[in-house]
Amino acid sequence: MAATKTVTAQTVEAQIKAILGAWGMDEPALSITARVMLWADLRGIDSHGISMIQSAYRRMRDAGVLNFAPKVETIVDLPAIATMDGGGGLGHYPSVKAMELAIAKARQTGIAAVAVRNSNHYGAAGYYAWMAADAGLIGLSTSGVTVAATVPTFAAEPRFGTNPMAFAAPAGRNRPFVLDMATSTVAIGKLVLASRASKELPVGWSVDEAGQPLTDPQRARELRRMTPLGATRELGSHKGYGLAMMVEILSSTLSGAAFTATHGPRQPGEPYDVGHFFLAMDPGAFRDKAGFLDELDAMIDVMHATKPVDPAQKVLVAGDPEAENEIKRRAEGIPLSTVLIDELRDIARAANAEFML
Amino acid sequence: MAATKTVTAQTVEAQIKAILGAWGMDEPALSITARVMLWADLRGIDSHGISMIQSAYRRMRDAGVLNFAPKVETIVDLPAIATMDGGGGLGHYPSVKAMELAIAKARQTGIAAVAVRNSNHYGAAGYYAWMAADAGLIGLSTSGVTVAATVPTFAAEPRFGTNPMAFAAPAGRNRPFVLDMATSTVAIGKLVLASRASKELPVGWSVDEAGQPLTDPQRARELRRMTPLGATRELGSHKGYGLAMMVEILSSTLSGAAFTATHGPRQPGEPYDVGHFFLAMDPGAFRDKAGFLDELDAMIDVMHATKPVDPAQKVLVAGDPEAENEIKRRAEGIPLSTVLIDELRDIARAANAEFML
Repeated sequence: MAATKTVTAQTVEAQIKAILGAWGMDEPALSITARVMLWADLRGIDSHGISMIQSAYRRMRDAGVLNFAPKVETIVDLPAIATMDGGGGLGHYPSVKAMELAIAKARQTGIAAVAVRNSNHYGAAGYYAWMAADAGLIGLSTSGVTVAATVPTFAAEPRFGTNPMAFAAPAGRNRPFVLDMATSTVAIGKLVLASRASKELPVGWSVDEAGQPLTDPQRARELRRMTPLGATRELGSHKGYGLAMMVEILSSTLSGAAFTATHGPRQPGEPYDVGHFFLAMDPGAFRDKAGFLDELDAMIDVMHATKPVDPAQKVLVAGDPEAENEIKRRAEGIPLSTVLIDELRDIARAANAEFML
Repeated sequence: MAATKTVTAQTVEAQIKAILGAWGMDEPALSITARVMLWADLRGIDSHGISMIQSAYRRMRDAGVLNFAPKVETIVDLPAIATMDGGGGLGHYPSVKAMELAIAKARQTGIAAVAVRNSNHYGAAGYYAWMAADAGLIGLSTSGVTVAATVPTFAAEPRFGTNPMAFAAPAGRNRPFVLDMATSTVAIGKLVLASRASKELPVGWSVDEAGQPLTDPQRARELRRMTPLGATRELGSHKGYGLAMMVEILSSTLSGAAFTATHGPRQPGEPYDVGHFFLAMDPGAFRDKAGFLDELDAMIDVMHATKPVDPAQKVLVAGDPEAENEIKRRAEGIPLSTVLIDELRDIARAANAEFML
């Protein structure tokens, strides 16, 4: 394994703010963006936290397609619906505003949805669904992705991104249910990890130009052609493909954002125009809220008590591994690879930002 | 292949009405239930049409757990939310009423959701999502299932049904997008078909009591233990398990219906208390409606024009195979197996219903 250094959550958050601030991001966007990115690092979603600065945001900034002082606007504002324009900046800030708006509206109407266009990468989808659950509501969020990497069933070329969806619901005694998933079989990060370790891929993760299974990790990383969840037609890839298209409709078509496969490659300097979707719903509008919380607690308890295949690996509920990570990392710190730390040092230096890692 | 006889849609619908009517179902439930069941037969979803009378509804009726003259009530009625009680009858009628209510509300508020409890099997989930798309809206529907058959990741016993979800969206020139899927890798019907054909199952469809892959079709049919979509942990079964639990939360916990794994086996004569969820959303509330329809048309066109692996099998969009079936079967009739026809003859005779097949 690569060498790591463990850094406190406070330091990771401060480092994110130092770099994004040096790039021109102001408050309140700065604190909110850092909070969402730190949440991913704390929960073990390492691909969506501080590493994004190195893996994507720097490149987008250099290409001039990321506005660090965007004007975030609410274009449509109805009692249960809103549409927002993200102003061409990173997606975290408009997305937090959008889910806050959906939550506030759902407290009045029982259900509300907010679509966001002209945005960009919004980090971990789970954060926004979790926001609703943390407020005692059911939450749903989806996002478009600019890089087409998922190959539809029967197809020989990619059409969708990893198109994530997240769903969360509040429990009483238990932690909330938080499902946060790419609609591809695996995220791109898994291909990168396998290629670094020169580890052959399982059949079903990736395909080649002819749509045939590809297990060579280097070629898979270069080609970036993933299967939809289900992996093969026989195992239900048409369902994962359908879910990816559902996410694209909710994120891009409903908000009026760009769909990569119809929009074509972006011109130099052209914003990505990513779209997101946020829904909040109050269980207390449908029935007694306490009954909902009790019954979800009972469901979660039954899952945890379900007979496991291996006594050493108990049955989990969506969100369990991330919540365990959060407890551990809040106490012990966040492990960052020394390679990433070195890269972030260079980025901080180039931006004239303080380096703290 | 088993011998079949081709029967007109009108005759299938009349036969459904003759039997359900003889069992005590009155109008308007009778015509609505027959319409939803016929839709499944026309679209090639053969497991959810007239065959349900033989495969499930007769047994439920004999067990006294199906009320053929239910009182369907709206318990909660807010501008964007409703909760309904299905009265312990078949699910089709209260579900059509629920989606009609969601559509009517969404035309006013932009988004609305209706939860249904104390219901039963509601046929093809896709019908209700399609209703919204047919009305120019986005539709979502989910349902609980009474028989636990899907085994969570890491588990050695089943906890969820096949827990279907359906999502539909209207296009302009093109047919609507209609995704209708079980959250298990395959539906029980596929195990039944494989066992009849004595055909070994692919690894990943089914597991045994120890949670290990089961490929013997007879044992798989008897055990009824399916994997969640994703098939194995390595290929993402935790996502399918998460989707199954999401469907259960939306269908059972939100409406206050029973969750089989916490409720325990039903007592003799006890209603199943199945729950459903229906959501309708108006794209025209978020943005210009024509733009939404145009962009979904463009997305569908891109999918159809995507380079296929095999030139003989073009890339499809969710709902395409079912729409093709509907055109063909409306013109040529619906093929029913002679075995099913014989069984329906016996059922009609026992019910003193006219037999027309």
